[in-house]
Order: sequence, then structure tokens, then C-alpha cells
Amino acid sequence: MTQPTSLPAWAQLQTLADTPQPHLRDVLSADADRAAHMTLSAAGITLDASRQRVSPAIQHALLSLAEQAGVAAQRDAMFKGEHINTTEDRPVLHVALRGDPLHTGPWGTAVQTDVQRELARVCDFAEALRTGSVLGHAGDAITDVVNIGIGGSDLGPRMAADALAHLSHTGVRVHYVSNPDAWALWSVLRGLDAKRTLLIVSSKTFTTQETLTNAASAQRWLTDNGCPPEALDRHLVAITASPAQAAKLGYPAERTFLFWDWVGGRYSLWSALGLPLAIAIGAEHFRLLLAGARAMDGHFCSAPLAQNLPVQMALHGVWNRNFLRMPTHLVVPYASRLVRFTPFVQQMDMESNGKRTHIDGTPATVETGPIVWGGLGIDGQHAYFQLIHQGQHTVPVDFIGVQNEDAPLPLAATHHEVVNLNLRAQAEAMARGRSLADTQATLLKEGLSASEAAAMAPHRSFAGNIPSHVLWLDRLDPSRLGALIALYEHKVFTQAAIWRINAFDQWGVELGKTMAKAMAEATAKAR
Amino acid sequence: MTQPTSLPAWAQLQTLADTPQPHLRDVLSADADRAAHMTLSAAGITLDASRQRVSPAIQHALLSLAEQAGVAAQRDAMFKGEHINTTEDRPVLHVALRGDPLHTGPWGTAVQTDVQRELARVCDFAEALRTGSVLGHAGDAITDVVNIGIGGSDLGPRMAADALAHLSHTGVRVHYVSNPDAWALWSVLRGLDAKRTLLIVSSKTFTTQETLTNAASAQRWLTDNGCPPEALDRHLVAITASPAQAAKLGYPAERTFLFWDWVGGRYSLWSALGLPLAIAIGAEHFRLLLAGARAMDGHFCSAPLAQNLPVQMALHGVWNRNFLRMPTHLVVPYASRLVRFTPFVQQMDMESNGKRTHIDGTPATVETGPIVWGGLGIDGQHAYFQLIHQGQHTVPVDFIGVQNEDAPLPLAATHHEVVNLNLRAQAEAMARGRSLADTQATLLKEGLSASEAAAMAPHRSFAGNIPSHVLWLDRLDPSRLGALIALYEHKVFTQAAIWRINAFDQWGVELGKTMAKAMAEATAKAR
Repeated sequence: MTQPTSLPAWAQLQTLADTPQPHLRDVLSADADRAAHMTLSAAGITLDASRQRVSPAIQHALLSLAEQAGVAAQRDAMFKGEHINTTEDRPVLHVALRGDPLHTGPWGTAVQTDVQRELARVCDFAEALRTGSVLGHAGDAITDVVNIGIGGSDLGPRMAADALAHLSHTGVRVHYVSNPDAWALWSVLRGLDAKRTLLIVSSKTFTTQETLTNAASAQRWLTDNGCPPEALDRHLVAITASPAQAAKLGYPAERTFLFWDWVGGRYSLWSALGLPLAIAIGAEHFRLLLAGARAMDGHFCSAPLAQNLPVQMALHGVWNRNFLRMPTHLVVPYASRLVRFTPFVQQMDMESNGKRTHIDGTPATVETGPIVWGGLGIDGQHAYFQLIHQGQHTVPVDFIGVQNEDAPLPLAATHHEVVNLNLRAQAEAMARGRSLADTQATLLKEGLSASEAAAMAPHRSFAGNIPSHVLWLDRLDPSRLGALIALYEHKVFTQAAIWRINAFDQWGVELGKTMAKAMAEATAKAR
Repeated sequence: MTQPTSLPAWAQLQTLADTPQPHLRDVLSADADRAAHMTLSAAGITLDASRQRVSPAIQHALLSLAEQAGVAAQRDAMFKGEHINTTEDRPVLHVALRGDPLHTGPWGTAVQTDVQRELARVCDFAEALRTGSVLGHAGDAITDVVNIGIGGSDLGPRMAADALAHLSHTGVRVHYVSNPDAWALWSVLRGLDAKRTLLIVSSKTFTTQETLTNAASAQRWLTDNGCPPEALDRHLVAITASPAQAAKLGYPAERTFLFWDWVGGRYSLWSALGLPLAIAIGAEHFRLLLAGARAMDGHFCSAPLAQNLPVQMALHGVWNRNFLRMPTHLVVPYASRLVRFTPFVQQMDMESNGKRTHIDGTPATVETGPIVWGGLGIDGQHAYFQLIHQGQHTVPVDFIGVQNEDAPLPLAATHHEVVNLNLRAQAEAMARGRSLADTQATLLKEGLSASEAAAMAPHRSFAGNIPSHVLWLDRLDPSRLGALIALYEHKVFTQAAIWRINAFDQWGVELGKTMAKAMAEATAKAR
């Protein structure tokens, strides 16, 4: 394996990082066309990268890094189904889940056939339920669906269902329970009618302790509320890559939907695990989500690296992480329906690239995945943004906005203006900051005396120079959402390709499970 | 001002930090009584600090630091109402909001009288509403309350209402809208009956753009849905420190509840801003929440620093931040009802201590507030915990658990065991990790060949040595929740006292507002 640090571009970038660069305030003021030059679009998404701390020389060296690291070849290996997840000896084919139904992709016909068969089953079942043909034990149409799953079996569909809430079926509600704390399940079940409730139990292995605990308790609730035990299967659906395990627990084969070991939980929204989402928004919208992701896949595969959105986002992230030494990364959507997008990206990025070992088993010689955090932007402005503006951490930011909105309220246009104005103002404020001299001048204008202004200015000045991406979705609909998710997937992939780590295993999450199991056994023995 | 770095204890701690310390794995194995020695309790909360990376010598030096920094004197100055918020020349008296109604505290009678008067008004109004005596324009009892506020006017009551959801009034629902994105308001209003809906508009200045946008839109919804404009005030409540501003916008004085400029938004849950919470859980429970916080205040004021929960938590935080150089801090509750506790603490901590200027205006010479992030623990185990276990960042953790639970589900005991077993297992896994040799031995036992085990071990070993606090609430009820919040408030206070920064201003959040306003004016001019 070639070490990232031994690539010529790495040394070049290190030299550039050691050279003082102008403040973003000056960079932006010096070039009125910077935004025009540094804006890229694909699949209904526009990226404004003009507030990254990169000069043309840095941009050029980053591009060389991507070339020298063989990003394109690694990308092609993934699409072809090579076993790039080496520690588990598996291909990584979430992209096949959203492949064109009419044209088999590089993954081949076996995968294509499996994928399209299950997708059709998922869509058929979702539509049957939405039109009232899925009935409970007493013949009532199902009106409430409870998805029981955790991590990858929860966050994806839940995030997307929130983002597309305006498209939700009004007569069928989909609920999500992930946490095994009984109050979580209670808070959902207490409002439901058992006769009209369907449980979807989602687990790749069908051995996930938290999920099986919730499933057992929810089944108990069904029978306690009048469901005859022999009719339980009318109220159960399984989604799993281990159908034998589901069958053992009494889940009927015709209500078991499959995915495969080559789909990581955090990349599984596109598979049968999307069923709760398909129920909420309908099969047609679900297929549009897949089509949006597919459009971004096409862009990722065919656009030159210099115009490639995920590659450019990844490269700026590498610059910020490895050369400007920023350990965290903030993701702040300004559309309130994207309320779970940050936790979703947090999982995708940190579970993929939170590694300290290169793919060949040697200790990583470069910084790998950052800590990803954040949440809705306008809410953050009234809270932790304080630290971003005046604390000691420089935190690179992804702002995510929506250009066209049509919320059904008479004053919707005013709302929308407030939201997007704030997004733009924050990106500017973070980039430019406010110098001590400017602050002092402002305070004098506000009527403070010279000595008061001098005393206050240090408390009211802002360093600025905070790099950000601004991502605009044309609108928030299934296809743009699909493209947005795929954009982050490929960004994460590209960084792993440069860092030479395996983004697709997650041994770290196993340790806790192993220790919990050992403790449970020790406790049981002690009894 | 004495620089923190010039205190003798600071130099002592630096020397200790430069001395290699044993791995937590060895520390814990060497002393079976460590947990017993390092556990403290107060106000229904137990802190197990045995997994901090502190030796007795470090503990001793940290205690000296607190003494030399004058934490006790600074604390007493706050309780006495001295103007410790120097840049705004104000006292800081959120502790007075939860003072004993029967005994005036060190803040004096003027504050005491104001506080108790408004508290009585809040409790009376909450009870009137809960018992159906607050009526809409057509004479219907109010069944839905919409709290419109952002930041400090939203997160506190919303967090507490979730935490105490089991105590919620079943006939009156309280909703929260903070984000000015129209979809946020729409998603709440679409389910409501205007005749039975009350709006609470919460804003300290009553000029907050986001809040006024949502309030105007919600009022429009009321009149569009049959409320005569002249009867609007039957559906409006204001909570503010600027009653004149509220009056100007048509909010009636008898429906305006007050707080004061000496209450920071992020410390305001205890004031009239707690009204939506009092409506949800009732006046008696709201007073128990205050009493729980008061119990922690008493502990903070009277317990020796060595046995003082908030002081000890703060000191370990200082050790991790300033000497072990960990820039972030993870807060992970394992009780699902504490779902908003992390964002709440994130705001409290980062808006308070996200500063780069000492209180005297000189640039901070020591690291100040960390980035606080996280969320529910068990969910995190299936997501970003990967990076905690195997990434390159060492992230100190606060685990928060509940000892006694009584959820109304037949299998509640099993659920509870799963949750708390996982909490304990994670704390242990993070502290101990798994060495390369142990991992190799485990893999051999699992049946891998020697060469396979050697190849896989680097990918499946874990560095460990991650420090954590484990906080146990006896149970999750109003008084323990009050104590928990006050615990974090005083921890943040203590760190600011040591770092010599002003925890009570927030000029950083102002810059974005100023720039948004300037942009709006520029846009208006350009039209």
C-alpha cells in the first residue's frame, strides 16, 4: 500500500499549509467573482465552495492528490463489486440498490436481479398497505406502522421521512422506535390501536439485542390487546439479511424482505430497509429518491474530478482536517425538515471513517475521520454558534439550504426569506469575522466613549476565517434528497480512498456488544 | 486579574501531565475499591468518577487549583447578586428563581419578591389552563398550547417536557416551534383546532426576528380559522423581560409573564419561561423541579470542594481539556426521555464558555470551553461510537443513567436491564479497550489461523484509556431532573471561574444577527 504521505501532492500540500495564507475576508474582498468560479452543480444541488481557505495552487495540489491516490480507480472497483471491504471480504454495493431498473450496472446481473425483485416486493407491499389492503387479525386496515430497528435500521428511513413529511400519507402513520428504554416504546404504543398496527422489525443479523427486546415487548402488547397469538404474523414484517434467523422467530417468509451482506447498515436506506419510508411517501416517491441518488452516482462516476461535487467536498475536507488541522466538522441544515440529517451524516461519516488503521493493517499515518456534529442552523445560531464565532476552535461548516419552498402558509415567503437570509449572513460572518479595529469603530458609532470602546472591543470582535461549504438544493423533494445523501456517501468514500482506510467495516461498534454480552453472562452466573 | 497559568497549581498540573500515567485498564485492575473511593452523591444523583485519568496527586493538585482560583468566592459573589456579568454590567441570578419561597436568599428581598410574585402567576395560570378554565374566543377550553420561542426560550422547557413526558397532562398538549422555516410551524398547526389553541410567545427582548415571524404567522392562522381579530388576545400569552415591547405588539398585560435582564436565556427554564412546562406537568411538579435544583445549589454552596459534585466534574473537565488536550466532550444519556438533554447542555456550556477573551479583555491564555456533542447512548453505540472506540480522537464522556425505572410495560424490567448493562459495558470498554495481544488471543480462540489473527488484530483492537463520568439519577422525576440541570450549570460556572472568562454574555450570537440585519437592509435598498 502506498502511504498517503508518500504521494508527491501530500508534500506539496504540506508546503502550502506552512505558507501563510490571506484571511478569507481579504480573499473574498479581492475577488468579486470567486463565488462564480467556485460553484458547481449536479443533480439539483449547487455547491458554493468560495469560502474554503484554498488558493488556486491549493486547489491544484488537492486535485493531484485525488489523482495520485487513485480515487477514480477505487471508485470503479466499488461499482464493479470488487471486495473492497477487505476485513469482511465483501463487495460494497449500495449503489446497485438504486441502479437503473432497465440497465444492469457494472455489478452484474445476479445482483441486479436480486435488487429489482426485492424492490418490487417492497413497493408492492407499501402500496397495498397505503391503499388499505393490508389487514390486521380482525380484518381492519392497518393505519399505524411501527418500525423497530436501531442505527442503520432506523436513522435512514426516519431522517428521510422527516425530510419528506409534506408527502406523507395522511391516513397511515409510521412511527420509529430504536432505543430499548421501555419509555421509548411506551410513548409510541400508548396512542395506538393494536388491531390496526403493523410492526416492522429491521435488523441485518436479526440478533440485535435492542431490537429483539423491543420486538418482544411490542408483540406482547399486541397479544395483551386482543391479538390471538396464532394471528400475530398478520401484524409482523421482518427486514433482514438473515432470513433464516427471522423465520426461527416466527416471521413468515412472505412478509420477510431481504437485503444482503454487501449493504452496510448506514448505506441501507435504498434497500428493503426503506420500506417504512416507502409506506409513508409511496412507491413512486421512493423510486424518485433512488433516481436522485442514481443521478449523483452518474455525476460521481463521470464528471472530471475538478468539477466533481463529492470529490471537491472531500478534498476540502482533507485540506481542513490534515493540513489546517481541524478535528471536527459541522453540518447545519437550514430547512427544518432536515432535522435528522446531521445525525444521519454523523453516523455515515464517523462509523465509516472513524478508523486508526490503514487498510493494510498498519497504524494510520495521517488524520482520518473528523468528529461530525451540528443540527438545524437557525436553532444553533441561538446556542452553540457562540463558540464557533468566539471560541478557540475553528470548525469547518457545511450549510445546507433550499432555494425554492412552497409551504402551505400565507406568510410562507416571509418565513423563507428569514431562513435563507440567516444562512447567507452566517456564512459571511464566519468567513469575515470582525476585526478589533472594526469592532472599536462600530462601538464608537454606537455611542461608547473611546475608553469604553477599547475595553469592550476584545469581547465583541470575531476572528472569522472559518471555512464553509454552502449547499443549495433546488427544492426539497425525493430526488434532491436522494442526491444529497449520495453526495455525502461519495464524499466519505473519497476521503477513505485518500486516507487508505476501510470505510465499510465497523469493528469498533462490536467491542461494546462483546463486553455487554460478557457482563450479562457474568451477572447471570453470579445469580 | 490573576492568570490561571500563574497559579502554582497550574504549573504543578502541567508537570503531572508531562509525567507518563498508567493506562486506565491498569489503574482499574490495580484498585478494586477505586469506584467506592471516587463516588459522590448529592440531591438524588451519584457521580462515579473512577474512570477519570486522575491519580491522587492529580486530584490533589486540581483541588488546589479550585482553591487558588477562588472558585468559592466567585460562587458566593454570584449568589449575592454582584455584577459578575461585567460586559453587560449585570448580576446573574438564575439561582434566585429557584430559591426557597419561605427564606430569602443572599440575593435580597427585592429580587425575592419579584421572583415569587411571577412564580405564583405562572403556577396559577398553568393550573387554570390544566383545569379547563382558560377559554378561547368561542368559549372552548384550551387543549393545545404552542410555545413559540428559540434558543433559551425553547430548549429548556422542551427538554424538560420530554424528560418528564410520563407526567404530562393527557388532555392538554404543549407543542414547540422554534425554527422560522414555515414547515416547522405548519407541521404543528395542521393538527390543531384554532378555537382551542393558545400561543405562548417567548422572547427576552421581544424583538427576536425568528420568533416574531412565527408569531405573526400563527396569529394569521388563528384569524384565518375563525378567530375575530379583536378576540386574538384570548389566544395570546407573552413571556418576556421587555413587557413594553410586548404591549406594543398587542399582548395584554394580564397575560404577560415577566423575567429579568439578570436571567440568561440558557439559564431561564426556572423563570416564567418555564410556563409551557408547568402547563404540561402541573404547578406542583414544576415546583419540585425548582426544589431539586435548589438542593443542588445548597450542595454547591456548602459541600467541601473535594466532595462537591459540580466542582469535581468541572475539575476533571479542566484536566481533560487543558492538560490532556481533549477539545471535545461527549454527553450521552441512556434514558430515552433525556433525548434533548445533550443539545440543552451543548447550548448551556458552549454559549457560556465558548470565549477566547479573559474577563479583563486580554486574550485567553488557556483552553476554554470544549465542543459539547452527543445524544442518546444506545443509539450512538450503533453509529458514531465507532470513532470513539477506533478513531484518533480521545473524547471524554459523561454517561447518564437512571437507577430505578417503572415504565408501564410488562417487560419493563428486561428493557431496563438491557439499557443499564449497555451503559456499564460502554464505560468499561472505553476505559479498558482491548490490546493487540488480547485481540490476537481472542481471534485465535474464535478459530482464526495465526496469520489470519495477526492480520486482523490491528483492525479489531481498541486503544481504550477514554475517561468518563457515570452519573446515576435515583430516578427520573422533577426533583432529580432539576438537580441534574443545576449540576451542569454549576460545572460550567466553575470552569469559567477557573479560566477567568465571563460565562454570561454571548456577543458571538450577536454578530450573525447584525450581519443578517445589514444584509436585509441592503437587499431592501436594492429592490
